[in-house]
Amino acid sequence: MLSLWLTHRWRWLLVCALISSPALAADTTASKSAVDTIWLAISAGLVFFMQAGFALLEGGMARSKNAVNVLMKNYMDVCVGGILFWLVGFGLMFGNNPSGWFGTSYFALSSAPPWDWTFMLFQMMFAATATTIVSGAMAERVHFSAYLIGACVISGLIYPIFGSWAWGGYGGGDGWLKALGFVDFAGSTVVHSIGGWCALAGIMVLGPRLGRFGPNGELRPVPGHNLSLVVLGGFILWFGWIGFNGGSTLAADVSIGKILINTHLGACAGATSAALLSVFLGRPILMTATVNASIGGLVAITAGCATMEPPYAVLTGAVAGIIATIGPAILTRMRLDDVVDAVSVHAFCGVWGTLAAGLFYSGDMFNTYRIMIQAIGIATAFIWGFGTASITYLLLARIMGIRSNAIHEQRGLDLTEHNEMGYPEFQQLHAFNPDGLNR
Amino acid sequence: MLSLWLTHRWRWLLVCALISSPALAADTTASKSAVDTIWLAISAGLVFFMQAGFALLEGGMARSKNAVNVLMKNYMDVCVGGILFWLVGFGLMFGNNPSGWFGTSYFALSSAPPWDWTFMLFQMMFAATATTIVSGAMAERVHFSAYLIGACVISGLIYPIFGSWAWGGYGGGDGWLKALGFVDFAGSTVVHSIGGWCALAGIMVLGPRLGRFGPNGELRPVPGHNLSLVVLGGFILWFGWIGFNGGSTLAADVSIGKILINTHLGACAGATSAALLSVFLGRPILMTATVNASIGGLVAITAGCATMEPPYAVLTGAVAGIIATIGPAILTRMRLDDVVDAVSVHAFCGVWGTLAAGLFYSGDMFNTYRIMIQAIGIATAFIWGFGTASITYLLLARIMGIRSNAIHEQRGLDLTEHNEMGYPEFQQLHAFNPDGLNR
Amino acid sequence: MLSLWLTHRWRWLLVCALISSPALAADTTASKSAVDTIWLAISAGLVFFMQAGFALLEGGMARSKNAVNVLMKNYMDVCVGGILFWLVGFGLMFGNNPSGWFGTSYFALSSAPPWDWTFMLFQMMFAATATTIVSGAMAERVHFSAYLIGACVISGLIYPIFGSWAWGGYGGGDGWLKALGFVDFAGSTVVHSIGGWCALAGIMVLGPRLGRFGPNGELRPVPGHNLSLVVLGGFILWFGWIGFNGGSTLAADVSIGKILINTHLGACAGATSAALLSVFLGRPILMTATVNASIGGLVAITAGCATMEPPYAVLTGAVAGIIATIGPAILTRMRLDDVVDAVSVHAFCGVWGTLAAGLFYSGDMFNTYRIMIQAIGIATAFIWGFGTASITYLLLARIMGIRSNAIHEQRGLDLTEHNEMGYPEFQQLHAFNPDGLNR
Repeated sequence: MLSLWLTHRWRWLLVCALISSPALAADTTASKSAVDTIWLAISAGLVFFMQAGFALLEGGMARSKNAVNVLMKNYMDVCVGGILFWLVGFGLMFGNNPSGWFGTSYFALSSAPPWDWTFMLFQMMFAATATTIVSGAMAERVHFSAYLIGACVISGLIYPIFGSWAWGGYGGGDGWLKALGFVDFAGSTVVHSIGGWCALAGIMVLGPRLGRFGPNGELRPVPGHNLSLVVLGGFILWFGWIGFNGGSTLAADVSIGKILINTHLGACAGATSAALLSVFLGRPILMTATVNASIGGLVAITAGCATMEPPYAVLTGAVAGIIATIGPAILTRMRLDDVVDAVSVHAFCGVWGTLAAGLFYSGDMFNTYRIMIQAIGIATAFIWGFGTASITYLLLARIMGIRSNAIHEQRGLDLTEHNEMGYPEFQQLHAFNPDGLNR
Repeated sequence: MLSLWLTHRWRWLLVCALISSPALAADTTASKSAVDTIWLAISAGLVFFMQAGFALLEGGMARSKNAVNVLMKNYMDVCVGGILFWLVGFGLMFGNNPSGWFGTSYFALSSAPPWDWTFMLFQMMFAATATTIVSGAMAERVHFSAYLIGACVISGLIYPIFGSWAWGGYGGGDGWLKALGFVDFAGSTVVHSIGGWCALAGIMVLGPRLGRFGPNGELRPVPGHNLSLVVLGGFILWFGWIGFNGGSTLAADVSIGKILINTHLGACAGATSAALLSVFLGRPILMTATVNASIGGLVAITAGCATMEPPYAVLTGAVAGIIATIGPAILTRMRLDDVVDAVSVHAFCGVWGTLAAGLFYSGDMFNTYRIMIQAIGIATAFIWGFGTASITYLLLARIMGIRSNAIHEQRGLDLTEHNEMGYPEFQQLHAFNPDGLNR
Repeated sequence: MLSLWLTHRWRWLLVCALISSPALAADTTASKSAVDTIWLAISAGLVFFMQAGFALLEGGMARSKNAVNVLMKNYMDVCVGGILFWLVGFGLMFGNNPSGWFGTSYFALSSAPPWDWTFMLFQMMFAATATTIVSGAMAERVHFSAYLIGACVISGLIYPIFGSWAWGGYGGGDGWLKALGFVDFAGSTVVHSIGGWCALAGIMVLGPRLGRFGPNGELRPVPGHNLSLVVLGGFILWFGWIGFNGGSTLAADVSIGKILINTHLGACAGATSAALLSVFLGRPILMTATVNASIGGLVAITAGCATMEPPYAVLTGAVAGIIATIGPAILTRMRLDDVVDAVSVHAFCGVWGTLAAGLFYSGDMFNTYRIMIQAIGIATAFIWGFGTASITYLLLARIMGIRSNAIHEQRGLDLTEHNEMGYPEFQQLHAFNPDGLNR
């Protein structure tokens, strides 16, 4: 009987344990989903803030007569892109994807479980990033409304459809590239190369700025009007990348430490290798080039930051710094005019980073099959991004005209398209010297 | 006996379970209070950073001769306001509130449980926001010390007392508006309308800037000196709003995702609708107006972001964008001079947002009783905010003078009140053309 | 038998409890290590962003002809410093430390448990902060490559070795200052005084800028070129300090609320006391001085923010504001030229803050023994930081020259050392008036 009594007492204790343990949990332990929510919310905020970085970097590298135009393009990208991504893009990218080629649900989502909203918030900021890469390259001569329509096509179609191949399947089904085993953790290819290839298409359709190349094809320098803004833009982009790469875990996780060390070292190595290359070539270490090289390092490490050991992150960033230095020289030799070197930094470094993610895959380095899959993803991004953007911009050029007329370009788009000047107390109007093609 | 032995073994296991389970919890699971602390700390940081956004937006929209003055007002708002809110404001707003009209404890808090500090940190940043809204409207002609005294009154009295009505009761008791069921999640009314109505009182007492209106009452443009700062300010404010609305949960919670999607879509819709309106009216899409419209969207969605479905957030933001566009025209017709259109963006859009929070309340839309309560809150905010601020500024005008003298205003307050120039290498002194009233 | 059957049923329930409870935990509660990781990641990001704050504050206080130079120094500090800290600094500071004088493991870490990476990320940002303090003081006349070598010595040796004394022992063993009971929660001494003393050594070796002192030793004003950047820099530093002090808990913890209230009040009090002092002395309240005073408040509260009650944080900050105001006057009387007053803000306020952390130690105030230990730490930091930096800069001066030649200095380092101008459309070249030593 004693044993029975004891058994009863234990039973009671057991009931308490069963009841109290979840009660205790609800009271004093944090829920994983809430923690993941705040991590993704913060990361989304940081990726959003990268838009300010892009705006300043691009605005600072343009001439003051086009400052408002560049800043407005970036600001409107976010606004129009956000609405469109909610309406169309999110569904195409993450909706149920039976074919592996595009999503078919989640359009204009109006009611969903909490996590879907958090996930969409984060992805919406990514879409804006891809779109905004284009604006800097095409600066100073693109017609504002034509540009905006192009930005809508990128946010609403080009980016999300490619995204569905590599990252799709949130709503069921898997993208075909993802199914192959393509590794692009936070988007060296999905975000940056796609943006970069669209930029390449844009500058090819647009042609160079008036006066950028002399009559014999010689390059003329067109210095940016505010390098303080450029370096601030660089710092903001780097800061935002903490959310870009760190948030791509989609959960609060201990692996974030290594991801961010790789990210940071990649950026440091990019700037350092570019500086050393300049010293080696006997050239001055330009600040604009240094900032771009660090961004190139960030772009490159984005694909493999979760699956690489830090020494390889340094290597990946260092090579990217050299690519970001050499790339612009190649493009200008082809008489392509990329105001902020977006094609080199985002497309070329993105290609290298995606390859590096395959080459230096932790525990399985230099696996030929993996590298081949990476190459397929890289090539697909080029064909899709460059192809669709070329069609878009050529159509826009045909239908409504994509390039500002020469007098507007010469006077500056701020005055002619926006009716506002960036620094009205400090700028001279360019209206009075109509014969000068370049200031 | 076997069963007894088994029972004993199970008992032992049970003891282990009872002991190990909390031990395990202490070891490896996160405490909810710690997670809530970091979420509120980060949110407080983001709301703090909004001060930089206000400073740049307002500074950039002023003329360069007053840049230092505008920036200093924002910087000192935070500093003086922080100390005052700790001494007085927090107690008035969140202290034990038996009457429902103001708090009576927590003044100059020196010892408290951990969460109180975290909560105070977050609320302190909110108080600074309300105060700083005023500075932009009154820019370029207000006497610095009079302005600062006004800011102290807002931080220490006007804002916290109204706040205690709508949000009070942290230390026991409930504010009377809160008890009625007034919905203002993160402060469309409590923070933004209150700030906006104070600004309206300020500009009415101050009068317009010299030269703002011509002899026949015609409006003269006074363009801001640095639109790069304006757009950066807009981005920073938007970024900070993630903490403003997301942190107003006061806890890490899965609901934050939808709150922030609503916030972001509200801002996007504000800028987009304002741009479309400009196109429709055949006017240029001004960058300053676009940035203001997105801020208007943010202000409006702040009240209802936690209780609205995303399509209604888009609608709320879109209407706010139109209000932010039309509001300034109404004010200038009344010959009121609001340098940064703070009254339209914060007061008018705040009114609309508070109404929208009632109209589109999820699961209970268009409930007349709820809408009536919202209207009571809106009207109360106007009467209290505009009334007390008018008294404050009129008294200041009477006692010490609130407006800089005309020569100071014309030369610029930087030189005359602060003895520093914003851009000494690039500015011409305005001292040498005393007959020009406007540059 | 019934009892036996019941016992069996309970057993089954117990098994469920034992199994389900951890399963449940894995499913729905957040792990402490993941939460700590995201908190440290965010904090590291904020500390990183402080670099942008330093760059803008320093760049804005320099003349436009040296803007690129100042910004580049800050940008390269982060890049080169990051790589070096990974290679050398982290090991010296946090490696196994049997002697108490320096670490001996963790060099060029390539594989480690997750937390080590997170910890290193946070610490890497701190190292960059210490290094960058120097750049502002030495601005406008230091040779870029000599500066960079000096920065490497600080990041790789001076900072981490002192750090190992006060904070070392992560990999086993304790630093000798730490073992004595030295209190410096987030680095008033370890980061700020060390950086400030290195800056003092730098400006003593360099000498003042050309034209800074007249022929009779009278001080000539050299106003900064862009005060909008200065105030933005101040806001960013303050924002970043949330990570600097809040993250120094190294864990998500409820104590963060009080730490950050102290931090914020310290900054508010610094600016407020400096403003009141100016009013009292009948001088204008300079914005540059106000920003510096708030930073001084932040520097001072950094040591004791976790072990002080808020009223003492206000006192600590208020005294720091006065020190930040008086310090520069003392230095200029000694004909030392500190472009941004970094020595006063970081070294002097750091000394005061470290003392205050001892004086106002919660629950054990004015303990003579504790104050003595604090004094030992303060003195050691001066001897080590000033001593090693003096040797470094004197050697650099001897070997490669540390000061730009006079013509370069006069034309501006942007054009002569970097081949880029900050604002090419707005600046006049200084090449054409070779006889003017100061603009």
